[in-house]
Amino acid sequence: MKFSFKNDYSEGCHPQILESLVRNNLDQQPGYGEDKYSLEAKKMLREKIENPDSEIYFVSGGTQANLIVISSILRPYQCVISANAGHILNNETGAIEATGHKILGIENKEGKLFPTDIIPVLESNKNIPHQVMPKLVYISNSTELGTIYTKEELTNLSKFCKENNLYLFMDGARLGHALTSEISDLTLKDIAELTDVFYLGGTKNGALLGEAIIINNKELQPNFGFNIKQKGALLAKGRLLGIQFLELMKNNLYFNLAKNANQQAMKIKKSLTEMGFHFLADTYTNQIFPILSNELIDILSHQFDFYVWQKVDEEYSAIRLITSWCTPDEAVEEFIRQIRK
Amino acid sequence: MKFSFKNDYSEGCHPQILESLVRNNLDQQPGYGEDKYSLEAKKMLREKIENPDSEIYFVSGGTQANLIVISSILRPYQCVISANAGHILNNETGAIEATGHKILGIENKEGKLFPTDIIPVLESNKNIPHQVMPKLVYISNSTELGTIYTKEELTNLSKFCKENNLYLFMDGARLGHALTSEISDLTLKDIAELTDVFYLGGTKNGALLGEAIIINNKELQPNFGFNIKQKGALLAKGRLLGIQFLELMKNNLYFNLAKNANQQAMKIKKSLTEMGFHFLADTYTNQIFPILSNELIDILSHQFDFYVWQKVDEEYSAIRLITSWCTPDEAVEEFIRQIRK
Amino acid sequence: MKFSFKNDYSEGCHPQILESLVRNNLDQQPGYGEDKYSLEAKKMLREKIENPDSEIYFVSGGTQANLIVISSILRPYQCVISANAGHILNNETGAIEATGHKILGIENKEGKLFPTDIIPVLESNKNIPHQVMPKLVYISNSTELGTIYTKEELTNLSKFCKENNLYLFMDGARLGHALTSEISDLTLKDIAELTDVFYLGGTKNGALLGEAIIINNKELQPNFGFNIKQKGALLAKGRLLGIQFLELMKNNLYFNLAKNANQQAMKIKKSLTEMGFHFLADTYTNQIFPILSNELIDILSHQFDFYVWQKVDEEYSAIRLITSWCTPDEAVEEFIRQIRK
Amino acid sequence: MKFSFKNDYSEGCHPQILESLVRNNLDQQPGYGEDKYSLEAKKMLREKIENPDSEIYFVSGGTQANLIVISSILRPYQCVISANAGHILNNETGAIEATGHKILGIENKEGKLFPTDIIPVLESNKNIPHQVMPKLVYISNSTELGTIYTKEELTNLSKFCKENNLYLFMDGARLGHALTSEISDLTLKDIAELTDVFYLGGTKNGALLGEAIIINNKELQPNFGFNIKQKGALLAKGRLLGIQFLELMKNNLYFNLAKNANQQAMKIKKSLTEMGFHFLADTYTNQIFPILSNELIDILSHQFDFYVWQKVDEEYSAIRLITSWCTPDEAVEEFIRQIRK
Repeated sequence: MKFSFKNDYSEGCHPQILESLVRNNLDQQPGYGEDKYSLEAKKMLREKIENPDSEIYFVSGGTQANLIVISSILRPYQCVISANAGHILNNETGAIEATGHKILGIENKEGKLFPTDIIPVLESNKNIPHQVMPKLVYISNSTELGTIYTKEELTNLSKFCKENNLYLFMDGARLGHALTSEISDLTLKDIAELTDVFYLGGTKNGALLGEAIIINNKELQPNFGFNIKQKGALLAKGRLLGIQFLELMKNNLYFNLAKNANQQAMKIKKSLTEMGFHFLADTYTNQIFPILSNELIDILSHQFDFYVWQKVDEEYSAIRLITSWCTPDEAVEEFIRQIRK
Repeated sequence: MKFSFKNDYSEGCHPQILESLVRNNLDQQPGYGEDKYSLEAKKMLREKIENPDSEIYFVSGGTQANLIVISSILRPYQCVISANAGHILNNETGAIEATGHKILGIENKEGKLFPTDIIPVLESNKNIPHQVMPKLVYISNSTELGTIYTKEELTNLSKFCKENNLYLFMDGARLGHALTSEISDLTLKDIAELTDVFYLGGTKNGALLGEAIIINNKELQPNFGFNIKQKGALLAKGRLLGIQFLELMKNNLYFNLAKNANQQAMKIKKSLTEMGFHFLADTYTNQIFPILSNELIDILSHQFDFYVWQKVDEEYSAIRLITSWCTPDEAVEEFIRQIRK
Repeated sequence: MKFSFKNDYSEGCHPQILESLVRNNLDQQPGYGEDKYSLEAKKMLREKIENPDSEIYFVSGGTQANLIVISSILRPYQCVISANAGHILNNETGAIEATGHKILGIENKEGKLFPTDIIPVLESNKNIPHQVMPKLVYISNSTELGTIYTKEELTNLSKFCKENNLYLFMDGARLGHALTSEISDLTLKDIAELTDVFYLGGTKNGALLGEAIIINNKELQPNFGFNIKQKGALLAKGRLLGIQFLELMKNNLYFNLAKNANQQAMKIKKSLTEMGFHFLADTYTNQIFPILSNELIDILSHQFDFYVWQKVDEEYSAIRLITSWCTPDEAVEEFIRQIRK
Repeated sequence: MKFSFKNDYSEGCHPQILESLVRNNLDQQPGYGEDKYSLEAKKMLREKIENPDSEIYFVSGGTQANLIVISSILRPYQCVISANAGHILNNETGAIEATGHKILGIENKEGKLFPTDIIPVLESNKNIPHQVMPKLVYISNSTELGTIYTKEELTNLSKFCKENNLYLFMDGARLGHALTSEISDLTLKDIAELTDVFYLGGTKNGALLGEAIIINNKELQPNFGFNIKQKGALLAKGRLLGIQFLELMKNNLYFNLAKNANQQAMKIKKSLTEMGFHFLADTYTNQIFPILSNELIDILSHQFDFYVWQKVDEEYSAIRLITSWCTPDEAVEEFIRQIRK
């Protein structure tokens, strides 16, 4: 059986989560997120971000989080600004538009957004009332390309958004990986201070499912729970999400898992760099995009599953390798060994 | 600590499910419902309903199932017909209307719909194009009131819908309980034959989460998967749903669990009937509505949690008791004992 | 050719409007409602309601006005409260639900809403977040049944809405008829003071098309224009609406037309009352509902068009007669003569 | 007072329309498009396109036509393909997205779409079910840039759409101008044969308001009228639209008006070309984009209103001039004379 580097959601969840599910299984709890595990997990999250006034909601997945957050914030005539690489633009079956909101895409490098990218979009959408009103900036950290924001970049973007009356929303499906990247200078607390809303992804970092939506801007907090229910995202057994985030928050498990995923990717990156290979982007999280000869790709594909991401020229292509919280050393070493051969 | 009869989703899940989650945890599988567990669970479901051509999708909850099914079937100008007691009308925060569709409610007894209820609604919605076009009949089995359809009733309703060019959609959040009721003469195969779409609920019958949407009408099958993704309901780790339904289908576990829930409720019903108590409705599933004196309700509430459902007169009220797949004999016996006192 | 009492939009428009259209036809004006006629008409309207801070928008029809106003005000999880007779509930093809919002209907007499009707609806929709949040009360004046609100009734309702954090929106498709009814004690200024938003209908009172949406509550004013455009309601030649309302406002034409419509209906009512006929409702605007024998209805229908509104018993039915700004005396007299025979 | 070349909707309507409105003003007619004028106008349109089976609906404006047509055709997960210059993308306040549908924009020259533009969009949207399904191609003729399709181009595009299971929808807000362009080889009948749906614009060609939606594809015809009403587009006095299209269809008035608008633009174009000026695009309809020095633009702006469309370099900019059905010779001549000076 091949080992898969296709994504970070191929396996189940961290064993500690399963143990807790087993341990607490017959404990009767209120439904719909009022269980003690959810309440305790939220408490721990609030402590970690050092914001006792944030509101936290657990939902099942990233597309769900994105569509609920965005549709809850925007008025019908308001729209989203996103990098063209944004998950909401290309990989969510028009989920945002299905709630009635246009997304203005911005061509940019590395999947990141900067004020200089946004200014011309604001400039070219001022024909009131014939154009939608840009109101929310959507970013991912880490991005779809595995890149991350520096503290300076995010601070500048946050400041720009405030000055321009725009909300800043961070898709944190892989926020753990971003924050534990060896080059990151951002903390979870920074994220909470610099964004209006963000979510912390569980699905891609050791949970069976689950994203924690964290609303920092008080303006956006009232009545948010209605949106969760209306969009079909309120689990009767909210305990399933609560228990998972509770375990992930204990002893920093969440960040340790992300760090492990990053380290496995960095091991491959380091080895390949030493062997003289190049990469499509210079990433420091759990996604890497090495450029290999088609012949080598063919050989590797006998033993490993991965996506061929982009053709570089007739002979070379970039592949995407994603490591996860549980990628074993053996797989990493075997992969490197195969290439070395 | 009080024992709760408030609902059938207070606990975790059947231990067999947890065991399977543990056993298969690190097995790498494709995401988004293409895992082997989901495929196998769907195969077993198709066998049980004896329809190899049905399409099956697993989603996380009932509101999610309802909104996806209904919005995928209806054109913008079409509407739903539902009993006034329907879950979609009162308990889903306008989730159906949020997808653009009106629900025409029908006042009726026992939460069930009959052709005679529907005819006047069709008659009074014929002012084309000034009124919405009724196109889908939504029923629950068991209903919000714990009642169930007989085979004759469902056959008549199904026939009526076909004759009137209406789709019939059954909310089966508690379908297991309906089919294993001591007075039921319907089978899962009947349900598949008599409805265009239905779902089989896991959340309220031993799963952590999960409803299996089963599309029998071939007209409604194409492209359904897009809707799942667009509404944020496609889990990256679809294995979580697949493993649960796989376990529930094995050795009839699903139906055994529902039967157990029903039996515990029936035990209470029988005892109370013998003691001379009356009930708000004559139910044979896991929901019962005994009418008790306010004094007795007060006493019981020291030891048990339950909803006071409806005031009957100054001295008496009906309470709602729901039993589940794991309601212990002790709780049932203690409850009876308390009343007897 | 039969004379029609079916509705108040069977003819074109008041000749003064056509004259102005002809007179100003080739005058070049800015598009999209920035023309001088629209600006002047809004100025006159603001003077009539004595509120210089109101915002006014002209749209083409009642359903359009209703759906734009309601969808602009409500957040996704909020809903409308309406009398069951409300136009938005029965005669607009689910236009409100199509924008995502549920309407809670209230059974009531005479098509009017009172605080006592609304209280139980608020009481039964408090299961947060499982139910929609009531946020806007929709009323019509005159109602679908031709009845009107008294100043006391509207004052009480307005007060109740404020106390309960509900917006009050009046559909004024026939507001002219309401205000000029012989029993009315309300003025246009009162309406502006007692509602958050209302519209003044042109279509049913002498215009070719056009309703003036008047937003009194400043909270609801910002960015409203975007909604007009987004819903396809912003006419390139806004002058068409501007010229009409300008003419209707001059010399009180609007109210004179409505008064004429009322008077013609009252003439018929008076005669029929004298002849001993009864009515389905005791109305004082341009809609009357006399109860006639089926035989008489049959005879009248050779010469007149009207709707048979409701069967009263085997021998008698109520018909609906609507008079308009241009119903000629001859038609009224001939109708009375026929009955007298 | 300045003469405006800003658009083709600055004036009222062709006098023949006003005469008919005056002549038929008090003729009682059924409402909601069932009046005899609408029926007769539809009959004439069907004759002109030589398709007795087409269905025709009159609505008030272009955005309204676009949003109704598109939302009536697409299922929730389907999307539109449009040129980046498309009116629906930039100038309709997100009206299409507000109905739930994404628009995939294509960068292209001259505002036109060719199969070669569309193929890569289809190729890059095949990740089922994670991406929306392209289903409808939206084009304008003439385009936002004044360019038009040749018969060969439209035939190829139509064939391509059929082969790829895409609907072809033409926005014909300025279809009259396209068809009467001196270089056009298309007829109205061709348009009806080559598109699934199109509309014929009245607002920009001599009507007060009104677009005629013509549905050629029988699959798309059933129940279309519900959408008109639901979106608030069904005028009570449909006669206003009927009378206008009836007059425009008589004696080819519609096409004569468009031809006149084109000729006035071509006169300016010819003179400027002779004087050595260049144009941003080589157009043959009623929109021209001459490139002038900023100094000259400044001088002209004392006497004429027009949009400065695009900066070409430090000294030169392109302006947009639009002529209409009633642009007088004097304005054209004076404009040419000013430049010549």
